Amino acid sequence: MPAGGEPVTVEWLTAEAFAPFGTVMMLDGAERRLINEGTTERFHALATTDVEAEGGRTILSVFRGRARAFPYAVTMMERHPLGSQAFWPLSGRRWLVVVAPDEEGAPGAPRAFLASAEQGVQVARGVWHHPLMALDETSDFLVADREGLGDNLVERTYDVPYVIDKPTP
Amino acid sequence: MPAGGEPVTVEWLTAEAFAPFGTVMMLDGAERRLINEGTTERFHALATTDVEAEGGRTILSVFRGRARAFPYAVTMMERHPLGSQAFWPLSGRRWLVVVAPDEEGAPGAPRAFLASAEQGVQVARGVWHHPLMALDETSDFLVADREGLGDNLVERTYDVPYVIDKPTP
Repeated sequence: MPAGGEPVTVEWLTAEAFAPFGTVMMLDGAERRLINEGTTERFHALATTDVEAEGGRTILSVFRGRARAFPYAVTMMERHPLGSQAFWPLSGRRWLVVVAPDEEGAPGAPRAFLASAEQGVQVARGVWHHPLMALDETSDFLVADREGLGDNLVERTYDVPYVIDKPTP
Repeated sequence: MPAGGEPVTVEWLTAEAFAPFGTVMMLDGAERRLINEGTTERFHALATTDVEAEGGRTILSVFRGRARAFPYAVTMMERHPLGSQAFWPLSGRRWLVVVAPDEEGAPGAPRAFLASAEQGVQVARGVWHHPLMALDETSDFLVADREGLGDNLVERTYDVPYVIDKPTP
């Protein structure tokens, strides 16, 4: 595991940059289908949940996250070996997605992505990520993740925290 | 199938009234869990998707529905024999949920439920329902439903339409 301590540069969230970690859900560029006799536009399959391991099911919950304070010290990361976890912002505010590559079973140096109020994210099954990071004010998110038997949570602590400065408006 | 033609009384959406048709998703009364070292409140499992028939998966999409005009004539209903379909309002507006009991393989007289901007609904697998009914203005909804093989859509037309008057503000 990296020693940590370095500052983390906040990046813009794009599908390409986030691809190693999961799926960016956004209307821009989505497959559109006109349904219900033309009364409804369907932005189709922005994400597909991945929860079936060991008989898991997809559940829908709401997460209400307190805004984080900055500079923020990333001390730990977690991952869900049995299921993806999708977040869709409900409060009309930007938010922060912090993930890390796996390095021999432990999280490598974190990467921070600034998501807009219109961008959701599905963190892929098994990907290291920081718990939900709301910005600016308490914010709600609709979450699609896994319920079922089995141990679906692994947490790891960095030897030295990584530091994220507050994203500029 | 009933002959139709009668006016449909709009009811308030409650978990009890909607129970024969599916699940009301709302924070009020939900199971709450404090997670992420107390920074996040999880309103847990407001709904569980039911899409596994014939190898289906849960997908997340956005539906953008045009506002319906009233009085509205309910001419048809549909159902998805292989999967539930959950709707969560994203645009901060009330909306209308129209469902019907099954009567020997056809939709019975429709019932109309007025949902608030903070109420989602999961229509249970196989339940007759009208396509999405946005109110007042074009509105977005996050939708969790099924993708997979198999015929997941049945539509039926009423002999005589049922009529819904505009819900009062």
